[in-house]
Order: sequence, then C-alpha cells, then structure tokens
Amino acid sequence: MTESRVASDADVLHDYIARCSNWGRWGDDDERGAINFIGPDQIRNAAALVRRGTSLSLTLPYDARGPQSGAFRSNPQVLTTATGLDYLAGEQDPLPAGWGAAKGFGYADDLLVMHTQAGTQWDALSHIFWEGKMWNGRSAGEVTSQGSKANGIENYTARIVTRGILVDLPVLRGVDSLEPGYAISVNDIEECLAAHSLEIRTGDALIVRTGFMAARRGNWGDYAGGSAPGLSLHTASWLHEKEIAAVATDTWGVEVRPNEIDYFQPLHIVALVHTGVAFGEMFDLDALAADCANDGVYEFMFVASPLPLTGGTGSPVSAVALK
Amino acid sequence: MTESRVASDADVLHDYIARCSNWGRWGDDDERGAINFIGPDQIRNAAALVRRGTSLSLTLPYDARGPQSGAFRSNPQVLTTATGLDYLAGEQDPLPAGWGAAKGFGYADDLLVMHTQAGTQWDALSHIFWEGKMWNGRSAGEVTSQGSKANGIENYTARIVTRGILVDLPVLRGVDSLEPGYAISVNDIEECLAAHSLEIRTGDALIVRTGFMAARRGNWGDYAGGSAPGLSLHTASWLHEKEIAAVATDTWGVEVRPNEIDYFQPLHIVALVHTGVAFGEMFDLDALAADCANDGVYEFMFVASPLPLTGGTGSPVSAVALK
Amino acid sequence: MTESRVASDADVLHDYIARCSNWGRWGDDDERGAINFIGPDQIRNAAALVRRGTSLSLTLPYDARGPQSGAFRSNPQVLTTATGLDYLAGEQDPLPAGWGAAKGFGYADDLLVMHTQAGTQWDALSHIFWEGKMWNGRSAGEVTSQGSKANGIENYTARIVTRGILVDLPVLRGVDSLEPGYAISVNDIEECLAAHSLEIRTGDALIVRTGFMAARRGNWGDYAGGSAPGLSLHTASWLHEKEIAAVATDTWGVEVRPNEIDYFQPLHIVALVHTGVAFGEMFDLDALAADCANDGVYEFMFVASPLPLTGGTGSPVSAVALK
Amino acid sequence: MTESRVASDADVLHDYIARCSNWGRWGDDDERGAINFIGPDQIRNAAALVRRGTSLSLTLPYDARGPQSGAFRSNPQVLTTATGLDYLAGEQDPLPAGWGAAKGFGYADDLLVMHTQAGTQWDALSHIFWEGKMWNGRSAGEVTSQGSKANGIENYTARIVTRGILVDLPVLRGVDSLEPGYAISVNDIEECLAAHSLEIRTGDALIVRTGFMAARRGNWGDYAGGSAPGLSLHTASWLHEKEIAAVATDTWGVEVRPNEIDYFQPLHIVALVHTGVAFGEMFDLDALAADCANDGVYEFMFVASPLPLTGGTGSPVSAVALK
Repeated sequence: MTESRVASDADVLHDYIARCSNWGRWGDDDERGAINFIGPDQIRNAAALVRRGTSLSLTLPYDARGPQSGAFRSNPQVLTTATGLDYLAGEQDPLPAGWGAAKGFGYADDLLVMHTQAGTQWDALSHIFWEGKMWNGRSAGEVTSQGSKANGIENYTARIVTRGILVDLPVLRGVDSLEPGYAISVNDIEECLAAHSLEIRTGDALIVRTGFMAARRGNWGDYAGGSAPGLSLHTASWLHEKEIAAVATDTWGVEVRPNEIDYFQPLHIVALVHTGVAFGEMFDLDALAADCANDGVYEFMFVASPLPLTGGTGSPVSAVALK
Repeated sequence: MTESRVASDADVLHDYIARCSNWGRWGDDDERGAINFIGPDQIRNAAALVRRGTSLSLTLPYDARGPQSGAFRSNPQVLTTATGLDYLAGEQDPLPAGWGAAKGFGYADDLLVMHTQAGTQWDALSHIFWEGKMWNGRSAGEVTSQGSKANGIENYTARIVTRGILVDLPVLRGVDSLEPGYAISVNDIEECLAAHSLEIRTGDALIVRTGFMAARRGNWGDYAGGSAPGLSLHTASWLHEKEIAAVATDTWGVEVRPNEIDYFQPLHIVALVHTGVAFGEMFDLDALAADCANDGVYEFMFVASPLPLTGGTGSPVSAVALK
Repeated sequence: MTESRVASDADVLHDYIARCSNWGRWGDDDERGAINFIGPDQIRNAAALVRRGTSLSLTLPYDARGPQSGAFRSNPQVLTTATGLDYLAGEQDPLPAGWGAAKGFGYADDLLVMHTQAGTQWDALSHIFWEGKMWNGRSAGEVTSQGSKANGIENYTARIVTRGILVDLPVLRGVDSLEPGYAISVNDIEECLAAHSLEIRTGDALIVRTGFMAARRGNWGDYAGGSAPGLSLHTASWLHEKEIAAVATDTWGVEVRPNEIDYFQPLHIVALVHTGVAFGEMFDLDALAADCANDGVYEFMFVASPLPLTGGTGSPVSAVALK
Repeated sequence: MTESRVASDADVLHDYIARCSNWGRWGDDDERGAINFIGPDQIRNAAALVRRGTSLSLTLPYDARGPQSGAFRSNPQVLTTATGLDYLAGEQDPLPAGWGAAKGFGYADDLLVMHTQAGTQWDALSHIFWEGKMWNGRSAGEVTSQGSKANGIENYTARIVTRGILVDLPVLRGVDSLEPGYAISVNDIEECLAAHSLEIRTGDALIVRTGFMAARRGNWGDYAGGSAPGLSLHTASWLHEKEIAAVATDTWGVEVRPNEIDYFQPLHIVALVHTGVAFGEMFDLDALAADCANDGVYEFMFVASPLPLTGGTGSPVSAVALK
C-alpha cells in the first residue's frame, strides 16, 4: 500500500467522522445515540404495522451449536443445576432451602455462561472506541473491569421498539447469499426499498439480510470473525442523513469484511462511535425473509430490547418482528 | 396438622388439577401451554393499545446488586474480557485474531454468568414437575444435564406478545406493599379490574403488582426465596376459566408464601404444570404502576420474549409494556 | 465385523473385568480404589528419592491456548474482576466492601471458568461407568446434577503422594512421538523399566510419555479427543498384578485410540472402573523427560493432589516431580 | 485521628518498606520473590522430614458451603455437564463426539466456576499494588483484563516445596481461637517455635494457625472479609530478616483486621509487595494441628503448588503437609 493510499484512507475516515458525528446532539450526557430518534411517533407507527397478528423471532438459538469457534469467543453454555432425572431419582426430597418434603413436587434449574456477543446481539455504545473515545466523546477509560460507567447496554433496554424494514438484497439479486467481501452500497439498499415502495423515515431500524447466515448455518467455519458481506463504509453518510436508529444484519459485524480501507471496522468507527447508530449482529433473518417474500410486506413492528446487563458492552436479545 | 387436614390438602390439590388441566388441549406434542391462547387476534389487539407511544421496561437490572443471597442462586456477573482501560494502555495494538494494527480502534467485551432465574425471568414449562410429569404429561426425565428435550424456554420465544393488564392491589388498598403471606384472591383481582372497567379476555397476560419488590429493593433480605405476598392457590380455576396465557408478579414465585396448603408451591403444580400458564417472576412493575396511575390506563401491549436458550428451564427477559 | 469378533470382544472385556476387579478389596465403602496402595511406606520411600532437590511441574498451563477445540470441552478462562489498570485509573479509591480510602493500595482479582478435565487432570472414580456401576459397585445414579455422592475427586486429595516412574518409550525407540493408534504393551513398558534397572512396586504411579503432547503442542488439532498413542487394553492384568496406584500420560485419554476392541475406552472400563487405578491425563512430561534423560534417574517423588472439589468428577492438578 | 498520628502511620509504613524491600535482589526480571529462597537444600531438607509417611490436606473443600458471602466473591460452583443419572436414562447412547454406541459405557463431567481466591489460595505477586507498582517494581498496569503480564500465579507453580512450620498460638495460649483484632507478634511466634525447639531457616513456609477457621466453620458470617486475628504489621522486619519464603494462615487475609495503622492491609504492602513473601489464605490447619499436637512434631514437608493459571492473580491450591 502506498503512502498516498494510506493518507487517503485516513482522509476518507476522518471526513466521514466529521460529516456524520452526532456527538452533543442529544446533550453531553446522552448515552443512547441514534436510538433517540425513536420517539412516540415511531412507536405508534410501528404498532400500526401489526396487521396480520404474526410474531417472528429474529434470534438464533443460544446453544453449543452456535457460530463461535472458541478462538475469540465461545458458544453459550446452559449448565443445569437441577434436572428432572435428579427429581425422579429422589434427589429433591426433601427440597432444598428448608422448603420441606417434596410430596410429588420437583424442579429443574440452570445457569448460563455466555459471551454477551456470542450470538444474536446488540453492541452497546461502550463496545467500540476510536482515538481514546466512545460515543458522545466519553473516555474509553470509563469502561473498566467493573463494566461501563457510561454507554452501557442498559441504555437501550425498552428503547428499541420502532419500524423495521427488511432489505433482502440476495433475493433481489437472485442469489442465495452475497459473497464475502461484497460491500452493500446505498444504491443496493435504495433499489431494495424501491422494489417495495418503501422510504426510510427517522428512527427506522434497517434490517439487512445478506444470506450469509443461511449459507453457513450449522457449518459455520469462520462465520463469526472472518470475511463476510456487509454494509459498505460508504453508507455512513446515508445512515446519518436518514436518521436511522439501528442497523442489524445476519453477519457477525454488520459491515463488509475485509474492510474497504486500511482501518479495522471503519463503519463501526463512523456510524457506531460517532453517529451513534445501534449495531445488531448475527440476527437470524431467514424466517422473516420468507414471510416478507410471501406477503410482499417488508416493513414491520420491530421489538428488540436487550437485557439490562448493568454496564454491559453488549447483550443477547430476543428480537421479534410483528406484522 | 391433623390427618384429616392432610387428606383435605391432597384432595384440594387433586381437585384443582382435575378441573384445571389443559393437557392434550393443543395436541400431545404441544410444548407451549396456555401461550397457545395468544393468536393473531391477541397480537393485533395488543398492538392497538399503543396509543401514546410509550415504552416501559419491566425488567430489574441484572447485576451484583440483585435480590439473590447466594444460598440457592447467585446474582448475575458480567465479567469483562476487554476494557477501555486495556485499550488506552495500548493492550489492543495489534488487535487480536489477526486483525492487524489498531490504528486508533479499540473495543470492550464481556461474558455473562448468571442463573437463568436470578432476576426478572420466565419459568419454562420444563421448570416444574409433579408426580413425575411436567406440562402435557411429558416425563420429568426429559430434563437431563443436557437440558430440556421438551418444554424448554425456547418454546416461548417470540410468543409472549399480547395484552397485559396491570392489577395493582396495594394501590387499591392504599398500602405500599401487601404483607408476606397475603394471598391474593379472585375477588381482589376482579375488584382491581372493575376499578378500571377491564375484563379479562382469552390470551391476556395478568401482571400482578404486590409492592413487595418496592418494599425490599436494595435491601433484599430473603426477598428471593422467603415469605411473600402472591396469588392464592384458589385463583387456579379462575386462571383456567379465563384462559389467561401468562401471569407475572413482582415477587420471586408468583404465588403466596407460606403456601396455603401443605404442599410446596401448589399453584405452580396446578396452573403451571397442568393449566400450562406461563409464570413470570421478579418483574419490576413500579415504573409501570406509576405510569398507569398517571394516565388511568391499566392495559397495554406486553412484549416479553425470552431468550431462545435451547433446552433452558427459564430465561432472563427484557419485558416491555407499550402504551 | 463378524458376529464372532463381536462376541470375542465382549469375552475379552468381561474376562479382564473378572480378573482385574478390586471391588470390595478395601471394604464396601471405599471411594479411593488403587490409591489405597499408597501407604506410609510408599510416602516415605518417595520422599527418599529427593536427592538433588529439584522440582518439576508436570502441568500444562491452563489458558485459552490449551488443547480443547470447544466441541466437547472448552479451554480454561481466567476472567478478571479487578485489574491494575482499574487501580491506576483510580477505580479502586475508595476500596470496595467498606474498606475505606485506598491511600496507595490496590489489587487485582479474577474468576476461573473451566471444565475440570480441560487440561492436566485426574479422572475421579465417579467419572466412568460400566453397566450401571462405577468403582466399587456404586450405582452411577449417585452422580447427579449436584455432583458425586460417592467416588468424587475429593477422595484423592492429599493421597497422591508416591513414587513416580517415567516410562519414556519414544526416547527408547528413537522417535519424537509414538504414532496415533500405537498401543503400548507390557513388553514396551518392561523394556523401558529394564533399561533403567527399575521394577514396579506396589503403589507406584506409572507416568507414561508418548511424545504426542510434544508433537501437537500449540497446534493441537484433534489432540483432545482424537486418535492417539496410549496404553493397550492388554496392560490391564499387569496394572492389576503390579498394584499400580495411578497411571498418567501426556495424551487425552491414557489408552490408545482408536480402541483395540469394539468398545469405547475399554481400559477405562477395566482399570479405572474395576481395578480402581487413578487415571491422569494430559500431563506435560517433556521437562521431566529431559531431566531424566540428563541424570539417568527415572524415578522420583510424585506429588499430585487434586483440588478437593466436593463431588467433582475430575480436577485440574498442579503435579510435581521431585528429584 | 490526629494529623500527627496520620503522619506517623505513613512513616511507619514507609520505614518498613525501606527496610524490608527485596526489589532487585533476584534481578530486575524476577517474578517469584521470596520463593527464590527455596532452593535444592530446602527441598532436600523438607523431604527429609517425611518420617511417618503421613499426608495431610491443608485445603478447605471447594463447594457451595464455603466461606464466601457473595458480596465480594462467591463460593465455588461445580456444574455438571453429564451425570450418572443421564447415563442410566440412556442419554449417553450413542456417545457424543462421534464415539459410537455406548455398549454399557458412560461418564460424568463437570465445569468449575470459582473466584480464584474464594477458598484456600495463594495470592500471586500480581494481586496487590502499592503506589502504582507491584512486586519488583513492575507497573500495576501490567495487570490488564487479559491477566498479569508479570508476577502471575504460574510463577509459583512447582516452586512451593519446602519445610513448613506450624505456629499454633491458640493451643499455646489454651484458647480455641484468637479473637478478631488480635495481632500476632514476633514474640508470639518465637514463643511457639521455642516450645517445640524450632528455629526458622531461610526458605521456610510459616504456617500460622489462629483457630479462627475452626471457630467459624460452617457458620461463616463475615469470616471472608471481616475482622480477624492475624499477623501484626510489626512482624514485617522479622519475616524479611528470617528470609521466610511463604506465610499461610487459616484466615482470609493473613494479617490482623482491623489493621493496626490507618492503611488497608499494610503487611500485604510491606511483605507481599516489597519483601515478596508468598501469602496463603484460608488454609485449613485443624487436622494438621491435631496431628502435630499428637506427635509433638511441628515441622513437615510442605508441598503447595498452585495451578498454572496463566496470568492469574491467585489460585486455589491442594496443599499437603507430609510428615
């Protein structure tokens, strides 16, 4: 890579940051970013999209068959602490905790061990840093081993309730999946929207399907960390101008990999850190895509509230599309 | 306790079971129970309740300050695996996983360790057994150390989207909190409903506030496992007849403790195991109660989809009330 | 495989079980098995082998670079709960737990998440079952989700202190590593012993190096679960007759894989379940091998006491060879 | 507290630090501290103390009944991933991981979740900081959320093998337990040593019993973090002069609590951070005390090698006394 290219990459990045920053827009204390675009109108309008009375899960099952290889993160483990087999064997009689004789009663219980970003998940605004800062100019130093003192995932809880729009580019292109390295452009997105006569409105959640989860499901390989199709860095201005609240994809990192410039995850740097857009990753969009193909309706009520893990830098989420 | 009382307790319990069982009602393979009462009409009608465009969280923060004492379950731990302080100290340059030079980029990440029922949570239908069986007559033996082969919490994912109705008895009675041992009766509930001109409809979620979480918040004592106000066993027939899909309370176990008969958690035995009602526990209802008191509207769209923890016997949930 | 071969495999296995069983030998309540062969003489004699005053670790580091692939077990995770960077950033002032002003003081702390058998480890006698039973005829049903009510790993704590003898067959054969599938025979072992003029005595720990850890170190592949060199099933009678207390190898499963007969891990079935020999796996023997090659002394004091994890089915262990 | 007292406390502390520091003594790269006092002579001499052939565990069982209250650290959890009850129910046939038909074979397995310092444990030299530094002048900043880049617990592995001497002051004083707040002095220790005609030698491990674990066992209260008997700060010079390698007690923090000067854990600051003495906490010394009272021998071979948890700030340990 020549020096001029390197200089040019830095220029590109800094130019996007300058144009797309929302720091201060909702006050210096804001910890929610573009989710602030979701207000009463967005919630009411979203609810008005519930016409058929259908609910679809957008969340990949959390279990040992998930996409993690164990190198950077590992798959969720649900560890039992009491089972039906214990109960049948008489192990719960008497009951624990001084609860007395079982008299026919029994229970099962378990404990969850999981990287918060092992599967379908929202990045918190405390997940990514750039030049020492995170969203709204807060110091990266506010994220300690005690968690995030600012921009934690709990700020999103109950806030991600808005219109979702499915952009299903592989279907439009007649392919099963976009290829790793394919950078989804603004034109691609607008072509999808136009095909369904949809226009982005302030506070929308843009749900982008690449087909890459379908292509790798059950035989994940480097799905969670390797090359992938995804949003182009050059969608940054459009995401900012359209006042999009959240973007979610069926890939591990929203944006295309390898990256288009010589910076790691530059769309995270621009759109998450500076524009404050909520990033949702590894959403399972195949059932939704089939439903939308069937009824021709690509907009829906999107409810995807993360767990209030105090100070968390991400969270698993049970996301639903309601139509 | 006399022998006749013991016999009588058994009779009471068996009588309720006989009258309230829904086993087989939705087929022998059903793993969802009363959540089946939620269909397209319920979802549409719930969405129609979103009038002001307000979203309220019903979930207690998940952190070390939670209600668990450590004796039976412990509080959630969010353990960091990468922090902003690491990043500022240069620990992330180069980036891990072969991602190259940091060039200003950094990240934080974490891992969650929590009992699935440590805080606000749904019981799965695989959580409770009675005389060898769980919901729909499935053997307790299907819950092994590998998880639930039937009736796991993933069966509720995307399904708990319906009308919620807040029953706020302490407000009606002019007290801060009902006392431990107070058994909430059908009359209590109907009096609350009548005060707001509401009637239960098939598939509703009954959200019952006792004030006990408010009374113990931050100074939990034996909140998670001790005596508590809660639903009377004698609401069982009414829950069954009214075709209620889910019940959630601001206590650890939905039903009154100590129990009214000499069986442990008899309402679980009747209403969860046999009627198949979804039980939600430790819901944080205080903000919702304040909102309802303010606008006088005690019905709302209730979206409370648990994480699809495959085979889980419960799940944390980010529950929202939309009005 | 022909029917007669299958019958023959069953015969072989049952014949070894019949000849090698120690059930009842130390009483019906015994939970220690062949470790009972270690008595005061063994401990004293072992201590007498400490001549140079050298201590060598036989334990592989426990960390994310370990041999597990994540499919069956995952590598150990040490998760920090307090760091020096927190401290330097002022996050520990005041100190937690009411300990007051830091005044210069700081600390780091962490939490371990690991499969007990993820690295260097002892199998407990509750780890393996055969036809419904574990060591000494105890029912497998005594191992519940609450742990082992019998034969738990805590029974070995403080008991594995004896003479260790290193059998280093690859060195004798002039190869770096035995090949996967190589079944180490009694002749192989005795040839090694004879080369160093050693004879097995009651209560010895037989430490068998295959070179396979050295061959795979850092590039583990299927090391933890795949094909491997190891002890032949046909060493079973010799292990029994020699009254060996413990066997440890530098492979994941002590015995050769694939197995020599059509049963999974038949030497576990015979020697662990019935003879009651302690099985140690993934011991890191390379430094010891180099030391023994250097001084020509292949016997040493072996101290390898597992953690008293109450009811555990295995334990990591910090094993040392003292010479 | 008057200003002069505060000044005086600072003077006391700084004076001890100046007199007791071993920084640089074993080179600028040393990560072992006073454990370096243990050499071949110490190991040989320790082995020579094994006369009766007895082995005693000094480790408290690791389980849910441990001393932690959950406020700062929680008790160990051994979570089963496969049980004998699963096996008996046919859940392991076929075996996992492609291992084929069970044909009578079964297994149990588990996963450990524990704070490294929840029970009997060694502090690593990376556990405590003072004025920005840890042992040997290394920056506290070397302890990140990825663990300790210097002074991690793995530096002690295989190194803590030396003579142990039991100082049993409550027996000498004829009490069951020293009282919380009792500061054990050099005179106290020397009186105990004299009673058994023992003298400290370079590299010894000083094992100090207060009786406080016996007093609190099973009814722990604030045992793990509250007031306790323990070593006086004023033993610091003596520990340094005597070239003691390690100190272990039956209390949570080695030194007396409340502290004698207005600094938190000042003996940690002097003896651990500056002298580099290994600190062992919550050692279970009651069986050893009984044995020593019986045979009158208060010296023994002490083998207490921590797990090589790479970068860990502490480790559980299976410590044994061999006599």
